[in-house]
Amino acid sequence: MGQNLILNGADHGFTVVAFNRTVSKVHDFLANEAKGKSIVGAESIEDLCKKLKSPRRVMLLVKAGQAVDDFIESLLPFLEKGDIIIDGGNSHFPDSNRRAKYLAEKGLRFVGTGVSGGEEGARYGPSLMPGGNEEAWPYIKDIFQSIAAKSDGEACCEWVGDEGSGHFVKMVHNGIEYGDMQLICEAYDIMKRGLGLSNKEIGDVFTEWNKGVLDSFLIEITRDIMYYNDPADGKPLLDKILDSAGQKGTGKWTAINALDLGMPVTLIGEAVFSRCLSAQKGERGRAAAILNGPEITSFTGDKKAFIADLEQALYASKIISYAQGFMLLREAAKEYKWKLNMPEIALMWRGGCIIRSVFLKDITKAFRNNQKLENLLFDDFFTKAIHNAQGGWRRSVAKGIEWGIPTPCFSTALAFYDGYRCKVLPANLLQAQRDYFGAHTFHVLPEYASSTLPEGKDIHINWTGRGGNVSASTYLA
Amino acid sequence: MGQNLILNGADHGFTVVAFNRTVSKVHDFLANEAKGKSIVGAESIEDLCKKLKSPRRVMLLVKAGQAVDDFIESLLPFLEKGDIIIDGGNSHFPDSNRRAKYLAEKGLRFVGTGVSGGEEGARYGPSLMPGGNEEAWPYIKDIFQSIAAKSDGEACCEWVGDEGSGHFVKMVHNGIEYGDMQLICEAYDIMKRGLGLSNKEIGDVFTEWNKGVLDSFLIEITRDIMYYNDPADGKPLLDKILDSAGQKGTGKWTAINALDLGMPVTLIGEAVFSRCLSAQKGERGRAAAILNGPEITSFTGDKKAFIADLEQALYASKIISYAQGFMLLREAAKEYKWKLNMPEIALMWRGGCIIRSVFLKDITKAFRNNQKLENLLFDDFFTKAIHNAQGGWRRSVAKGIEWGIPTPCFSTALAFYDGYRCKVLPANLLQAQRDYFGAHTFHVLPEYASSTLPEGKDIHINWTGRGGNVSASTYLA
Repeated sequence: MGQNLILNGADHGFTVVAFNRTVSKVHDFLANEAKGKSIVGAESIEDLCKKLKSPRRVMLLVKAGQAVDDFIESLLPFLEKGDIIIDGGNSHFPDSNRRAKYLAEKGLRFVGTGVSGGEEGARYGPSLMPGGNEEAWPYIKDIFQSIAAKSDGEACCEWVGDEGSGHFVKMVHNGIEYGDMQLICEAYDIMKRGLGLSNKEIGDVFTEWNKGVLDSFLIEITRDIMYYNDPADGKPLLDKILDSAGQKGTGKWTAINALDLGMPVTLIGEAVFSRCLSAQKGERGRAAAILNGPEITSFTGDKKAFIADLEQALYASKIISYAQGFMLLREAAKEYKWKLNMPEIALMWRGGCIIRSVFLKDITKAFRNNQKLENLLFDDFFTKAIHNAQGGWRRSVAKGIEWGIPTPCFSTALAFYDGYRCKVLPANLLQAQRDYFGAHTFHVLPEYASSTLPEGKDIHINWTGRGGNVSASTYLA
Repeated sequence: MGQNLILNGADHGFTVVAFNRTVSKVHDFLANEAKGKSIVGAESIEDLCKKLKSPRRVMLLVKAGQAVDDFIESLLPFLEKGDIIIDGGNSHFPDSNRRAKYLAEKGLRFVGTGVSGGEEGARYGPSLMPGGNEEAWPYIKDIFQSIAAKSDGEACCEWVGDEGSGHFVKMVHNGIEYGDMQLICEAYDIMKRGLGLSNKEIGDVFTEWNKGVLDSFLIEITRDIMYYNDPADGKPLLDKILDSAGQKGTGKWTAINALDLGMPVTLIGEAVFSRCLSAQKGERGRAAAILNGPEITSFTGDKKAFIADLEQALYASKIISYAQGFMLLREAAKEYKWKLNMPEIALMWRGGCIIRSVFLKDITKAFRNNQKLENLLFDDFFTKAIHNAQGGWRRSVAKGIEWGIPTPCFSTALAFYDGYRCKVLPANLLQAQRDYFGAHTFHVLPEYASSTLPEGKDIHINWTGRGGNVSASTYLA
């Protein structure tokens, strides 16, 4: 990754100093990939810092966690006030918050930047999401925007905001990536087990979908995967892959952050849990032998129409997922007192990274049209899109239920939509229950406020006529 | 809460010393509620410790967090080796882990105990879930089991396990409580908006349900709430209550812990997120004006049959929720190296606490029948119950989708069931995608292992024919 970013920088006319703890790797790199390019090697951290001009711009690509702190400490003796340290790893944003403060006290400028796009992105244009000490931005803007991916001529890199906000935005990006991937898996499962399509036929569907509203990197690679046959026997490789996925990363962080901030980011939550369930491979095997479900009989309806429904289900669920992601970003900006530039965030995700898609253009447009857009779903384009999609979306989820094929992310997206557009949710009952058993009190709906039920006041009712001298502070259940 | 526990203890023949920082409260208590009972007042912490016989058993009921640490520190000068400190508050289990270790170093015995049942429970029989230093158990067992709730003659209190496991079990209890409450809300919403039933009619349904498999405290109080009319105008009070619920507590902790341990506890997750969504009251109101859904036309089918379906949906979802909760307990025992006694945990929840129900008897029975039961769903009773329920469950969820009435917990439970009993999930595609864009590698299904696709090995395929010198360690997306 580091090597590819260096090569990318050199290709754009910058002279880059390369360093690795294992110095022989630097020598190998200079003798091979870096040969003939404006790349200089460093033999030590001291040497690295000596070779950089002031203000130094040092970018780290090391494993998130202690290694970042260690590397920063080893740099400190050789840096001067005003120098810039850039962490390009997958750091957890609270660590970046802390580092930004710590280095600011030393007169150094810290930037935590999200980098997405894998190896190929790093080499030819990643998505970059830098945040931290804004004074650093003028010194790195040109480099970052030069090496970043371009979308419609715009660099997929802008200043994100304060402290760890760059890593926060990358974290949410990854959470959304978890969601997008799971949605595609659900569509695949429905086509495979529900419609009984072959991998080739499913690949053809993804080929078509990639020409429409779902046009995106992940749909594209899914198409390739569907078409890929094991050279050994010419049969689809996909069918031979173990259905067990890990999840110990940024997707989990996003879901936990959503819970911490009290934002209903249900789709990412379900996507993470789906990976957890997939990891219970042995137990699932034993469950499959005991627990039954509906028989899936061969599909007799209009396949083409059903596939069109499914496309809408995926599209609508994706809209919900991004709407939830932006709700989380909005709340984080409030909670952590960051200024976040919503349209630019969408722009940064438009190219270079894993979730890049045509769809993100529409999101950029929505937030550029209305900088104060409260929710993506309130943008005219997306309101219409989801209205148009909902018929097929509902039919797809219902069909999954009938067939016994799980669509946790399609379903949770739909439940969110129906809950979000619901003026009065049944949470009134929840509040009544809590007041009943724990004297937790409730508020009255403004339209029913009266002298006995005053608006905005904590009200407790003696529901049973018994007991009574209890208050919310003593509720333990 | 503290007062009620003291009164409860005195009623069972124990002499209890009462103390409160605000000493006048102690005087008031002695002059009123405690009058004529075996209750002694203390004027100070020193006085409290002097009045207790050795080994001292000091139970704290203070706000979780710093207050517990502060109180413990203020006790230390007056305690002797072997004395027992019991934290009966809603502490987060990692704090109890820490306190158990800290006090053990000082020769003191720490017990963190879950207490559930609200004021009335504390007074007449709470559910108690003590864990920590097991040496303390013989000294408190008699008191705890005397004051605890009884279910079929058994005390709803047993030793839970090491360190913070008592508070952990209480946390999961509360998470399950979140789930149970949300499930009831979903059934209520379907009956209200889908079937168009009045509160009185819905109350009648809950009355019936409380005679069957759903027989429980929460169904009982829901029935009462449905029947409760505002004395001011004789109209249902429930309809006037603001539909916005808080969630900053133990439900959230449970969901976060599930994510941390990689356990798919989806129902509690959705229940917490449902509260988050309910809290977005203003935004929902604006959304309701913009986003549309299906028209709910008056129900023309067989109402009785549909209500029977709904009962099964609630029952099946509840089975899933408890199965998930016990999966989390099992994983926690493994992760934290605790011995947890599953049947006794179910027993502790059977009486006294908010989730008390007939249902928990069946769970106790299942785990007593088979101490090594891998999953609640593998117990014959529950396998049959869920098979029997699934038709109505599927029809209920499908109906909610058709009507546009959200049932996030019914739905996620069903998705879990269908995923759990699925031998091959579409996570194979997820692994293929991750290998495609990030060289994350995958494993092969054992039945397809070969010399080119060896079992148990990390396999990477060059899906495109391009690139290639990448490995999982450098994947950043």
